[in-house]
Amino acid sequence: MSVKKAVVLLSGGLDSSTCVAIAQSLGFEVYGLSFRYGQRHFHELLAAEQIAKAMNIKEHVIIDIDLRAFGGSALTADIDVPKGRTDNQMADEIPVTYVPARNTIFLSFGLAYAETLKSNDIFIGVNALDYSGYPDCRPDYIAAFQNMARLATKIGVENDQGVNINTPLIDLTKAQIIKKGLELGVDYSLTTSCYDPAADGKACGQCDSCLLRLKGFAQAGEDDSIGYVHDL
Amino acid sequence: MSVKKAVVLLSGGLDSSTCVAIAQSLGFEVYGLSFRYGQRHFHELLAAEQIAKAMNIKEHVIIDIDLRAFGGSALTADIDVPKGRTDNQMADEIPVTYVPARNTIFLSFGLAYAETLKSNDIFIGVNALDYSGYPDCRPDYIAAFQNMARLATKIGVENDQGVNINTPLIDLTKAQIIKKGLELGVDYSLTTSCYDPAADGKACGQCDSCLLRLKGFAQAGEDDSIGYVHDL
Repeated sequence: MSVKKAVVLLSGGLDSSTCVAIAQSLGFEVYGLSFRYGQRHFHELLAAEQIAKAMNIKEHVIIDIDLRAFGGSALTADIDVPKGRTDNQMADEIPVTYVPARNTIFLSFGLAYAETLKSNDIFIGVNALDYSGYPDCRPDYIAAFQNMARLATKIGVENDQGVNINTPLIDLTKAQIIKKGLELGVDYSLTTSCYDPAADGKACGQCDSCLLRLKGFAQAGEDDSIGYVHDL
Repeated sequence: MSVKKAVVLLSGGLDSSTCVAIAQSLGFEVYGLSFRYGQRHFHELLAAEQIAKAMNIKEHVIIDIDLRAFGGSALTADIDVPKGRTDNQMADEIPVTYVPARNTIFLSFGLAYAETLKSNDIFIGVNALDYSGYPDCRPDYIAAFQNMARLATKIGVENDQGVNINTPLIDLTKAQIIKKGLELGVDYSLTTSCYDPAADGKACGQCDSCLLRLKGFAQAGEDDSIGYVHDL
């Protein structure tokens, strides 16, 4: 029997690293896909590379895309990252850190990669609970992408076989994700989550992403072994 | 009243140039979007730039993406371009010139651009009749992309207002497209269609794209003023 291949979108963060471990636990050979997309912080890609190596994935492709051409987001332009937002604020407001159509662009490249590999599975670590207000992390969106992908590709047309967009974290809390990953042996000390780290790579502890991560570790009753700017 | 903005995917070919003219005729201010995607032929982008200038569009953005990382297509790798295929062959077989998930990637960037411009309209020159066997040129696919796009974006979520994927050429024959464009003043001598041009930029006259173009001009009863390798 030929090995099952899966493309896993790998950001260098906690969620995508957990997705790698889950895909591997399901018997997939993992092909990691990361993006150099005009981030202000290259530490994300360094983390992705370290994780790819530590988790012994089959191949790791990094695609250069430049979303700065369109402007409009704190993650790619020079807008201040919001700090200390409450859970309600995160739930109600789409933050300025939103990158236009980001997951759509990432999944589109994932689709091209999967089609080239003759793989029917893409994993993405989106989460509908602790999702920080991004529209393209919701189950409806993922289902619509999967439907579109089936109609977009040679595999879909010739075999009526689409690509599965796997979202194993979509209904989990951050604490559940962390527990799951630790069970599967993920080394979270290699991951990075902060939107606004210090020059030495230490996490700020105040942006949405740090706050969600810290709350998750606290609720899981586990220690977060990455460094933060202030002792927390 | 504020001006209506539209993103038009601009390849440098006959169809996309016609789309620019149609969008302008409908009162849209046109923002052109082209891609440098590891094509073997940079003449496409030169043509796109000339068309953007000649048609006086508002802005022309060229995005670098590198589909060569995934391999798998004649337009990006070193596979021979098929020549002299019959209409039936074009209709029945997805050609090796198919680029995996290409329109999905292009439309995803179009979506990011549209969202940044606060535009609700993207134009793409796909055609379901003379479409050379590409799966991502069919109406079902376009409708599925539009549905996905509505769920993907901040505009879609906050105002329940999606982006329209406009395909004004989808039901037209190549001859009808050419007649429409000539009515609207498109200068087709600036456009390029060939998948395998000579070093001097002359079209081969034998690839799918040349054959469709030549048939279109013949059926429209018009002269094609671009140069071909052989007198035709």
